[in-house]
Amino acid sequence: MRPVYLDYNATAPLEAAAREAIEEILAGPLLGNPSSTHAPGQRARLLLDAAREELLRITGLERTHHLVFCSGGTEGNHLALRRAPGEENGGTLLTTAIEHPSLLEAARARAAEGGLDLELLALDGWGRIAREPFVAAARGARLCAVHAAHNELGTMQDVAALRAALPVVARLHADACQYWGKVALDLSSLRADSLVVSAHMIGGPVGIGALFVRKSLELEPLLRGGGQERGYRAGTESVLLAHAFAAAARAREQRLADDLARVSALRDQLRSELENAIPALRVLTPSEGALPNTLCVTLPRGDGRALLMAAQLQGLAISSGSACSSGAARPSAALLALGLDEASARRSLRLSLGPATTSVDIAHAASILRALHARFAALDVS
Amino acid sequence: MRPVYLDYNATAPLEAAAREAIEEILAGPLLGNPSSTHAPGQRARLLLDAAREELLRITGLERTHHLVFCSGGTEGNHLALRRAPGEENGGTLLTTAIEHPSLLEAARARAAEGGLDLELLALDGWGRIAREPFVAAARGARLCAVHAAHNELGTMQDVAALRAALPVVARLHADACQYWGKVALDLSSLRADSLVVSAHMIGGPVGIGALFVRKSLELEPLLRGGGQERGYRAGTESVLLAHAFAAAARAREQRLADDLARVSALRDQLRSELENAIPALRVLTPSEGALPNTLCVTLPRGDGRALLMAAQLQGLAISSGSACSSGAARPSAALLALGLDEASARRSLRLSLGPATTSVDIAHAASILRALHARFAALDVS
Repeated sequence: MRPVYLDYNATAPLEAAAREAIEEILAGPLLGNPSSTHAPGQRARLLLDAAREELLRITGLERTHHLVFCSGGTEGNHLALRRAPGEENGGTLLTTAIEHPSLLEAARARAAEGGLDLELLALDGWGRIAREPFVAAARGARLCAVHAAHNELGTMQDVAALRAALPVVARLHADACQYWGKVALDLSSLRADSLVVSAHMIGGPVGIGALFVRKSLELEPLLRGGGQERGYRAGTESVLLAHAFAAAARAREQRLADDLARVSALRDQLRSELENAIPALRVLTPSEGALPNTLCVTLPRGDGRALLMAAQLQGLAISSGSACSSGAARPSAALLALGLDEASARRSLRLSLGPATTSVDIAHAASILRALHARFAALDVS
Repeated sequence: MRPVYLDYNATAPLEAAAREAIEEILAGPLLGNPSSTHAPGQRARLLLDAAREELLRITGLERTHHLVFCSGGTEGNHLALRRAPGEENGGTLLTTAIEHPSLLEAARARAAEGGLDLELLALDGWGRIAREPFVAAARGARLCAVHAAHNELGTMQDVAALRAALPVVARLHADACQYWGKVALDLSSLRADSLVVSAHMIGGPVGIGALFVRKSLELEPLLRGGGQERGYRAGTESVLLAHAFAAAARAREQRLADDLARVSALRDQLRSELENAIPALRVLTPSEGALPNTLCVTLPRGDGRALLMAAQLQGLAISSGSACSSGAARPSAALLALGLDEASARRSLRLSLGPATTSVDIAHAASILRALHARFAALDVS
């Protein structure tokens, strides 16, 4: 069994640069609490602020946004959807039915508190926010919270165009967890008021993310207490994680142009091999305007869950839909929301590539899927 | 300058066992998202669950409580104070004015949502919850949330006695961040419905904590989404941090009895040396019923802030009050709540010892403080 990891959209394995950054901290001098004024505390504070500045530089947001370290994408999405102090009621909260559950559920909870009406935006068949209905919906919007790129489909939204169509008073939050580091590291062109990214999606450690918040934007904190992170988020900050997060971003920055071309070519190779081997394969990832590393496909026949398990047993780390905590056999909510029936959603596979993916990996993955599809399609008596 | 670290109650330096656990993960096979069903995901899941089981065993809570990994004490306190689904309004939320800001502010936010009235419990001069007023207050209580041991004073609360005085329907939450690993690792004797601990207070990494929740207790999650942690807390779990957290707890377990006796003797040595050197020193830490590693004192004269800075410049890592994010010169809110005037609160120092503290450290710290006190008292013209 030759293991092939094609699940970078669930988590990217820890990058060498992040590992080295962790080792550097482990070998370094004693670090105190970054809020302490003594020398070990101030050493921690300097490292933390260096990581913050590096990430602000890499994202191009240093002049416009604060960086709030938080525990990851889920927390960042929740914090971004909090009220501004003194915010009045009224207006709509625009989002889509295919958001990551952390964003969609945070939006539902925010709407349930009262004050904002939830409105799910119309999408085209690729999961793109439809232009005309958006322009109409935007009029009453107070808050719009959408993904910049979709974790399953790979489809990207034109976030800057949404911003342009929104009233000036409406706030725009972009979940950039999948977008960041796969197509670009600069986030300023998205023109969002808040943006969240997750370290482990680019080869940094799990357990840390960053919410970028426009400097003029106040938010009622989700976590109160010590007043860390300019009052946006209380709790002792992890220097270890922040340092490794910045190192992973810097490594990605140095290689992004090369990786983009290489990963994109490999993804196209995978697509061709699967399309050639499996007639009637449905490709859910659009050819244009999608993440270069993602391929989401629906097999035409067979028991999708059994096929996925068989592929995993042969060492192929892929998924059906987003990583689900329960390991349950529920079909992807996003694919159902896009109109797929349950059986088709279960027969959908997400293959996501990363910097370590090779051409041999792709050929091997395609060969496993070809063989398994032939076997399972033959068993399909429906 | 000989550095001496006496700020274990702000953060304990990373233990060797935790460092080794991190290195083990860094050197190990590729780990996926613990929610993924493929092999790299399942490797992560096994490590995460092993850490969980180890921590449940060490705390003696494996039969009664679930362990919910979260980002630390601040988040754990916030989650513990969330409503239970369908919870009715009415009754009081009992806490004290000297809680860690994360607990006190979470309690205030919970009360502000409506449904519960906040009531601050009467304390004696050592910061202990006074027995008679508690019994009276307990009658109307729905939720009681208090520290098991105080981060500044070292004073411990008799949490089990509070439980006994509370109505059966009232829920008891214990902030055990300072208690755990300093006096005991078993938390079952506290008889609380929920308890929070923080890894970095026992030499584990910053960025992870555990909320123990009685198995029958449901809570509205603070973070929703992927449904991780039995639905109590969404977000990808950090295997790296959880593994190091469990390793730090195991190391502390193996040495706790020895450390307790040694650290307690050193703290008593420090107390004697300071009392001998500084007549009229006020000791805020009680002789009985306090953390064995903590000594909180108020100097009788001098500019407390200037003295603290001078001590820090001489390599003595101590603090005045709890670690404060702003580094501002605000006196400790807890000490003010106990009745100290501002000047006395500013002249208060917290010295907190740990497993690596030596007798030489203590003698050195006492000598620095003795000399500085003589110098600053002479300058005090008040």
